[in-house]
Amino acid sequence: MAGDSEGRKFIEFAPRVRKSPFYAATRRWGYTAYTVYNHMAMPLYYGSSETDFWRLINDVTLWDVAAERQVEITGPDAARLTQMLTPRDLADCAVGQCKYVLITDADGGVINDPVLLRLGDDHFWLSLADSDVVLWAKGVALSANLDVTVEEPDVSPLQVQGPKSVDVLRDLFGGWIDELRYFRFRETELDGIPLVVSRTGWSSERGYEVFLRDGRHGDALWEAIMAAGKPYGIAPAAPNQIRRIEGGMISYGTDATRAENPFELGLGRLVDLDQEADFIGKAALRRIAAQGVKRLRVGLELDGPPLDAGNEDLWPVIGGDGRTGKLTSCIYSPRLEKNIAMAILPIADAAPGTRVTVETPGGTLAATVVALPFYDPKKAIPLGIVA
Amino acid sequence: MAGDSEGRKFIEFAPRVRKSPFYAATRRWGYTAYTVYNHMAMPLYYGSSETDFWRLINDVTLWDVAAERQVEITGPDAARLTQMLTPRDLADCAVGQCKYVLITDADGGVINDPVLLRLGDDHFWLSLADSDVVLWAKGVALSANLDVTVEEPDVSPLQVQGPKSVDVLRDLFGGWIDELRYFRFRETELDGIPLVVSRTGWSSERGYEVFLRDGRHGDALWEAIMAAGKPYGIAPAAPNQIRRIEGGMISYGTDATRAENPFELGLGRLVDLDQEADFIGKAALRRIAAQGVKRLRVGLELDGPPLDAGNEDLWPVIGGDGRTGKLTSCIYSPRLEKNIAMAILPIADAAPGTRVTVETPGGTLAATVVALPFYDPKKAIPLGIVA
Repeated sequence: MAGDSEGRKFIEFAPRVRKSPFYAATRRWGYTAYTVYNHMAMPLYYGSSETDFWRLINDVTLWDVAAERQVEITGPDAARLTQMLTPRDLADCAVGQCKYVLITDADGGVINDPVLLRLGDDHFWLSLADSDVVLWAKGVALSANLDVTVEEPDVSPLQVQGPKSVDVLRDLFGGWIDELRYFRFRETELDGIPLVVSRTGWSSERGYEVFLRDGRHGDALWEAIMAAGKPYGIAPAAPNQIRRIEGGMISYGTDATRAENPFELGLGRLVDLDQEADFIGKAALRRIAAQGVKRLRVGLELDGPPLDAGNEDLWPVIGGDGRTGKLTSCIYSPRLEKNIAMAILPIADAAPGTRVTVETPGGTLAATVVALPFYDPKKAIPLGIVA
Repeated sequence: MAGDSEGRKFIEFAPRVRKSPFYAATRRWGYTAYTVYNHMAMPLYYGSSETDFWRLINDVTLWDVAAERQVEITGPDAARLTQMLTPRDLADCAVGQCKYVLITDADGGVINDPVLLRLGDDHFWLSLADSDVVLWAKGVALSANLDVTVEEPDVSPLQVQGPKSVDVLRDLFGGWIDELRYFRFRETELDGIPLVVSRTGWSSERGYEVFLRDGRHGDALWEAIMAAGKPYGIAPAAPNQIRRIEGGMISYGTDATRAENPFELGLGRLVDLDQEADFIGKAALRRIAAQGVKRLRVGLELDGPPLDAGNEDLWPVIGGDGRTGKLTSCIYSPRLEKNIAMAILPIADAAPGTRVTVETPGGTLAATVVALPFYDPKKAIPLGIVA
């Protein structure tokens, strides 16, 4: 298939790029743009990022995020392996609780930033960003000779995000939705469809994830949520870049890679160096914590007229004495009426107020370093995810 | 970005989907369709799959396969780790030699099917299909306490495939290209650009891979090869599905996954159970070899008019007594004037001549099981890759 002459870029599918259980539904609802995430097609903007943004912050939106694949860890050594994988202390993680965690390698580099769900004493899910943690966890378990099973189960999340998400899910599931605390979940069902419902999400707004546990029911689940959401103006949408950058949330692979450690990302609160348990990267992270970081993730406000679109590539950021950093994500926020961005800069350029220069494909732009997040009402979550 | 009303599907880029060093060149040369492979955008058909096919089998084509990322294994235990990762006996693998290998998990399931290059006694590359083997290898090395470094280096392959590839590369590199044996490589350079040139490829035709070892020179390397290829009618193209299915070659993630073992894939020749060295999956593969497989990869010839396109999804194959298998890849071969496919079928349906039914999105098609490969002139390589 060739493309057209208007600079548009097409995607070709093959079974290697898996389709989500909601694929048919999303095609019916008009999705036509995709990325690939965890070897799965992930539908993107239904409208424009800006249209979706206002719907997300004012009403409620539904996203197909089945590409957040799960790593399921079960067996007698499940808790031990799961703790080995993350610097966050899981000793107090109850069944029914979620935690935002980083997965680190031996150098402290970030392999993934999943939400962990504890389904039982010996039963965990890692709800993944885009890397094959199933291979990492299997490799670690194998050589450490642990008695665990590590697999990717038939589990596919949707996200219902926005202030009216609670109304939609109350109508679907009942009053317990109001009682569900932040970063808690419940196993439930809908018309016989097995589900997990958690109060989590990647929006910085109130929201829920609905984890489908049987892929045959994708169509029915999607339509049930759309029907329940109709009175609340629900719209089909996708992870919203404006809101998540306002909230300072990381997109793994873009804002964080194995080349960054948790402290450079400003996520030291997710590293419990004093816990008794051992975890991969502990020695390296102790050393980094003692020495301090050389680079830091910061916010940037870019001068100039509103950006047309986000960045396809990393953009160089030039600081003092020719020091260089990288802009990782940027977009125009119609609420803040500013071009906002995240960048990883040498520590000497990372203080709020520092002026730097960003090399964009369209020329250089001056920018000012600011603290993250960009938008943080009392009810919002500082730096994205806390729980 | 919304799409259009003609059923076309668009791709959206972000830094998470990396661009190859050849991206600018491929845009200039008119590529507009992509898949995502190893977290990198990979350009697809320049013309149509059929146009590319004739150019590939008659002349020579150039492909951007930078998305074949390398896992580089170095250090005192490099040979030991590399042998742990694959069932193929590497004891006789010389420096300068390549081997097609499978990477297997503890159950014998296939994690990847790279081409291995031995650059030194303690220096290996695995030129990957689409999965994060860097995480698997790091995980295995970590807990096994091996003294190795496992990383993804700045290495980006191109493929120059087709009968005239030897002419193009001779003009570029000199007469030693004629002497380069199948599955051997040499470290070299072109106008100061550091390269590895191997006689390998994913075409079932004569061909070479040119591994760029410094991403800054992508544009120069692409243009140098296109210029050298001009007298031979070189065309920009992409991995060709018609030729590789004719040759019975696997596309990992489509024709093989962790759910399949080497014997089910008909690739038992890549498993050396009698070697002294231990490797991951040895016990499981011994058991499977003793018991025999329950499923087998086979060829299928589909009745009916020429297929418009390949399959986006796995298609169910119905055999005797309601047994089901899966069609993994199919396409119309204009040379064979047949619809050809690969499938994994229950062993009772796997004998050549067996009639089965394929459930396609457009209705059912009758089909006949045949041996692989579909096309195998004396000079061609049976079942794709042997060396």
